[in-house]
Amino acid sequence: MRVLILGIDGYIGYPLALHLIRKGHVVVGLDNGSRRKRVEALGCSSLTPILSMEDRHVYLRKMFGDYEGLHVMTLGNKDVNHTLFGLLGQFQPDTIVHLAEQPSAPWSMYSREWARETQLENVLGTLDLLWGMREYCPGAHLVKIGTMGEYGTPNCDIPEGVIPEGCLGEYTSHHPLFTKPYICPMKGLLFPRQPGSWYHLSKVHDTNNIAFACHNWGLRSTDIMQGIVFGLESINPTCDPRGKEELTRFDYDQFFGTAINRFCLQATIGHPLTVYGIGGQMRGFLPLKDSIQCLTLAIENPPESGRYRTLNQFENVYTILSLAHMVADAALKLGIEGVSVGHIENPRYEAEDHHYNPTHQALFDMGYEPTTDIRGEIRDLIEDILPYKDRVVKDMIMPTVKWR
Amino acid sequence: MRVLILGIDGYIGYPLALHLIRKGHVVVGLDNGSRRKRVEALGCSSLTPILSMEDRHVYLRKMFGDYEGLHVMTLGNKDVNHTLFGLLGQFQPDTIVHLAEQPSAPWSMYSREWARETQLENVLGTLDLLWGMREYCPGAHLVKIGTMGEYGTPNCDIPEGVIPEGCLGEYTSHHPLFTKPYICPMKGLLFPRQPGSWYHLSKVHDTNNIAFACHNWGLRSTDIMQGIVFGLESINPTCDPRGKEELTRFDYDQFFGTAINRFCLQATIGHPLTVYGIGGQMRGFLPLKDSIQCLTLAIENPPESGRYRTLNQFENVYTILSLAHMVADAALKLGIEGVSVGHIENPRYEAEDHHYNPTHQALFDMGYEPTTDIRGEIRDLIEDILPYKDRVVKDMIMPTVKWR
Repeated sequence: MRVLILGIDGYIGYPLALHLIRKGHVVVGLDNGSRRKRVEALGCSSLTPILSMEDRHVYLRKMFGDYEGLHVMTLGNKDVNHTLFGLLGQFQPDTIVHLAEQPSAPWSMYSREWARETQLENVLGTLDLLWGMREYCPGAHLVKIGTMGEYGTPNCDIPEGVIPEGCLGEYTSHHPLFTKPYICPMKGLLFPRQPGSWYHLSKVHDTNNIAFACHNWGLRSTDIMQGIVFGLESINPTCDPRGKEELTRFDYDQFFGTAINRFCLQATIGHPLTVYGIGGQMRGFLPLKDSIQCLTLAIENPPESGRYRTLNQFENVYTILSLAHMVADAALKLGIEGVSVGHIENPRYEAEDHHYNPTHQALFDMGYEPTTDIRGEIRDLIEDILPYKDRVVKDMIMPTVKWR
Repeated sequence: MRVLILGIDGYIGYPLALHLIRKGHVVVGLDNGSRRKRVEALGCSSLTPILSMEDRHVYLRKMFGDYEGLHVMTLGNKDVNHTLFGLLGQFQPDTIVHLAEQPSAPWSMYSREWARETQLENVLGTLDLLWGMREYCPGAHLVKIGTMGEYGTPNCDIPEGVIPEGCLGEYTSHHPLFTKPYICPMKGLLFPRQPGSWYHLSKVHDTNNIAFACHNWGLRSTDIMQGIVFGLESINPTCDPRGKEELTRFDYDQFFGTAINRFCLQATIGHPLTVYGIGGQMRGFLPLKDSIQCLTLAIENPPESGRYRTLNQFENVYTILSLAHMVADAALKLGIEGVSVGHIENPRYEAEDHHYNPTHQALFDMGYEPTTDIRGEIRDLIEDILPYKDRVVKDMIMPTVKWR
């Protein structure tokens, strides 16, 4: 397949490109380097010593015949869409993987300017892309990265994207007055979202815009509600994650770092693990290699034209507190002593003890083989990042951006 | 109360300002003149010979002590928000009525540029406003104009904003397997929207952004899901709608004109009434004077801090076809002969025969006294616009923008 990866320089984009090329797909990428710039503007950088964007391009060119190249441009910027549209028309992708959005919730909550930039880049960038697809490659399959955070934490089970037939039958035990299965009259409507930041809202806006483009114009899309990704290992055993050329970035700062990655980093430098509040927050998680496996399944199994398909993409649900204890335990077994689980005041406004039962069946139906040994994954991750612990900028770790 | 009206130069904004000033409220307005400019760019203008924005300002100044003035700026424009924020800080409004959005569905469907401008101006304009409220007037009440079109036409009844307790009990007759009332497990979540254009999507994005700002920051807002407004008569009997100074604008072109207004205009010039498809589309409608009455109720009865309140604002539901026949009948009784109801190919992608049963109880609970004589309203409207029929630009009437 011909695959265009928007955001090819990112945490997922680069290992996904390597994996797809090795599987025989023809890949071209686009990136504006915004993640590097934004992390550098904070006074930080990737923990892993990754190649520059230019050197990655040279490396892929040298290694692979089926790598078409890298283009530098910004989505959501009025003036550069001629370049994007030129690429769509010239490359004629079968699949467009859209990873090119501002991905941080706290970054979007920091200021009006950053909230604005998040919704501008994400919502208008995707809107431009939809118009470009309609014009230049209406048969292409858009694989869009959303987030499980679009759903928030409602007091009911979470289906995959839309309200399913009979969905409320699942609630019999909670609501004794309801005793029989029935046809849900709201069947097929988008399940209501409860996004918890300007970033999460931008993803919900995307969801609504993409669903409309599929319905109205007959485009096809897989909208991935992805859980929190962690780890450094790629799916391909020939790809040594510690080999410099193929290393992906690793962020641990308060803005672009995420739960397990941050905890493992904190463990390696003896920092108390930063559990927000009581830590009962439940979220879906998956290792990086599972994310790449699942994205590949979505790419290689496109929906029919006109279909808007949602996949809830995660391996399993864990509480933040249980993960912190798994990390502390794994560190101890690796000989790192004195790792403590620290509860800090929650900078976010979120439920810390709640119902959480999202469905994630569709990917299993497509053949997803989950990596279920999360303790093993955590151990591997700590080992993977230990060599770089002297690169840590310690004052990037504690959260300062408050939700209220 | 101190009321800031964003979009004070518009169809609703100007008569609302006059009404609020006459009721003793202190009013200040903001507008960028975009409606005038956009209609002029099409080669058209308001049917009614309205004052220029500058002359309206002079008139209000001359007539009323409680009119604070008019500011010209564009929402959603990065550079002018200092002016908006200065106004919020200096005027300290109790209420902000936000009418300053691009309001046309076909305009938003015309091109990528106009789709982009619609979502930029509407979504980012409102996002800026929310940040400004948080900073400069966190206790103010935001009265935001959304649209009944946010809901689309789902195959179930439409509540006011959120999924109510036990809502599904209403479906017993449709779904025989469900026999008992029960507690709806999705109670309180936003009712799923099915917006049908980039414009309608922009309003749904606003809804999500505003609900979050109320929940997270404790702002207060009334989000008005408004039906289709028609007519020229203002609520205040001392305001002669045909008096030049207080006339509001009247659009009849394919972009900014809406159903009843367009039909009445077509009747006056002998143009077949442009029913799209079979005309079974059902929508909520209300006369302009009811819109002003309802907005005033919302303004004078604010919700408590932190509350996001939705009002479904319309007088009653009608099919497009029945309205066309009412207009033709009224025209005939006024001595206008030869008015025909013409069915044209539907340029939109929408259901033409569907279930439609939206709730609109909250405004009645607040004291709304509806104008139920729609045939009388249609007759009055035809009489009001007859003097201006020589101003009609006839090639603005037929729709050319197609949804697919």
